[in-house]
Amino acid sequence: MEKESIESLGEFGLIDRIKSTAVLYDSNNTKLGIGDDAAVIDNGKTYTLVSTDMLLEGVHFDLTYTPLKHLGYKAVAINVSDIAAMNGTPKQITVSIAISNRFDLAAVDEFYEGVNLACEAYHIDLVGGDTSSSRAGLVISVTAIGEVEKDKIVYRSGAGENDIVCVTGDLGAAYLGLQVLEREKQEFLGNPNMQPKIDDKTYVVGRQLKPEGRTDIIHDLNEIGVVPTSMIDISDGLASEILHLSKHSGVGFTVFFENFPIENITLETCTEFNLNPIASIISGGEDYELLMTFKQADFEKIKAIPEITPIGFVTKEKENWLVLNSGEKTKIVAQGWK
Amino acid sequence: MEKESIESLGEFGLIDRIKSTAVLYDSNNTKLGIGDDAAVIDNGKTYTLVSTDMLLEGVHFDLTYTPLKHLGYKAVAINVSDIAAMNGTPKQITVSIAISNRFDLAAVDEFYEGVNLACEAYHIDLVGGDTSSSRAGLVISVTAIGEVEKDKIVYRSGAGENDIVCVTGDLGAAYLGLQVLEREKQEFLGNPNMQPKIDDKTYVVGRQLKPEGRTDIIHDLNEIGVVPTSMIDISDGLASEILHLSKHSGVGFTVFFENFPIENITLETCTEFNLNPIASIISGGEDYELLMTFKQADFEKIKAIPEITPIGFVTKEKENWLVLNSGEKTKIVAQGWK
Repeated sequence: MEKESIESLGEFGLIDRIKSTAVLYDSNNTKLGIGDDAAVIDNGKTYTLVSTDMLLEGVHFDLTYTPLKHLGYKAVAINVSDIAAMNGTPKQITVSIAISNRFDLAAVDEFYEGVNLACEAYHIDLVGGDTSSSRAGLVISVTAIGEVEKDKIVYRSGAGENDIVCVTGDLGAAYLGLQVLEREKQEFLGNPNMQPKIDDKTYVVGRQLKPEGRTDIIHDLNEIGVVPTSMIDISDGLASEILHLSKHSGVGFTVFFENFPIENITLETCTEFNLNPIASIISGGEDYELLMTFKQADFEKIKAIPEITPIGFVTKEKENWLVLNSGEKTKIVAQGWK
Repeated sequence: MEKESIESLGEFGLIDRIKSTAVLYDSNNTKLGIGDDAAVIDNGKTYTLVSTDMLLEGVHFDLTYTPLKHLGYKAVAINVSDIAAMNGTPKQITVSIAISNRFDLAAVDEFYEGVNLACEAYHIDLVGGDTSSSRAGLVISVTAIGEVEKDKIVYRSGAGENDIVCVTGDLGAAYLGLQVLEREKQEFLGNPNMQPKIDDKTYVVGRQLKPEGRTDIIHDLNEIGVVPTSMIDISDGLASEILHLSKHSGVGFTVFFENFPIENITLETCTEFNLNPIASIISGGEDYELLMTFKQADFEKIKAIPEITPIGFVTKEKENWLVLNSGEKTKIVAQGWK
């Protein structure tokens, strides 16, 4: 019998498989298990949110061009982003690291300097973790604990027909930043005396190396009293996240490329690298912006938050469409981790 | 300038260093950060406990002799043990894995079979995690969430003069089990057709491969209405844990080797491997039993729990002594991860 490979399932297939065998024993307390940006635990007064991410050298980051301080910051920020995606406030974090003997104490200090900076920026407490030696590269595992009032929690599953689809910030820059860094790495490997040519690319490079979780938007939404109907953070790319919301909510999304918030430098970098801008924007991951849907009735209110941009609407039909500037429609298909 | 190495600090030195730079921003909510078996978060009604552990192939486990199902079970059990060490009840768990392409889907299923068995045994919910590819071996990160009533929480810091020092279960077997498995591995590498000779060693091997978190003891203590004054789980070895309780509580421990609960098979295996039984029992880790202290007044009550054995007493002087069967005293010194 041929061995069944993990690749054939893909990341999301594997998660579904793990979820299908998990039994919830404590349904009073566990409100939601596997399958959203964070797990939801009923602590009586509020919901406790739990999200976790593992980052491996050579898979998720390349230390050739990633300063350890930025890596520490990013490891926290991407978990903060998951808590924000449930409309929650991050409160505590645990950070575990496994390090090989090529790292000295100064390297560990630099990493935790980034972790502590992120804790300061998001006002969260580093409360635990694990330290270990590693025979391979650096491994990081972060778990974020957050809180949300029970009537304000937002799942992937709440989008309804005619809701407005919005994103925060701008799209695609982190992916283009990665292209710039990879190019510099190749040139550096060819000529170690070269000077990096990234002065005009600081924006896209910064988006790759130092993303932010959008807790500011969660705060602003709370101020104007609006709760999204569904939400997810954009880690794997807009297309992938649209498909998640579509699947969980049982509706379809139609989004318009002309409405996408994209910085000029992002589009210019696409041209420079001869990359299709549409594919780069819709599939490029790691922006850690929020994709969310709102009731039509809330549309006037959310105009007060300039960093939220409407990009489309929700349909009853469970098909997902990207409308190009020409008016042509293209179906949004699956992406994901392999 | 010479680079400062991580080895020179050791694991506990590194944890102290990380702790010293961590700022707690939310002291209303975060009751205790780094430095005990679990972090303590005040959720209003009760305390939420958070504990996390990372396990790496080639460092923490050897797949030559560790069945993946046992590994999944153990990864959960050792985190359950940390929650128990705070006198808490484990409720939820997240499990992250990074796997290289030499693993097929059957291997992942086997690992999660063990995780799910442990969830069933401890009545806890698998609520999340992360899956990723790995360029090196298997990496596992588990975070356990637990709960404890506010007036029942037990820290490392509560031991007082004249308290009785106790342990649960028996000591040293897991370390001897590891010796047996390592010997079998070496013999197998020399002759792959060999038959394993572990029939008479099932107890010690089982203690290494499938430890249990002592939630049963926590339940029993709750039933008889006794709260330990301090507690820690025995993961790094009895000596190391005694030093932790001593340091955090500001007191000393005197324990008697003749009182230690040790199975005959453990002592016989020491003889067979030509290992000093005292060193093996006091420094051998991974028993995942509980070391705890009780007020004298509770001594009669705890006799009702046969799996709790008194092994010594707490002194005002901050020195830690092991009294041998000969009556000779030997000072307990630091051990730990390097």
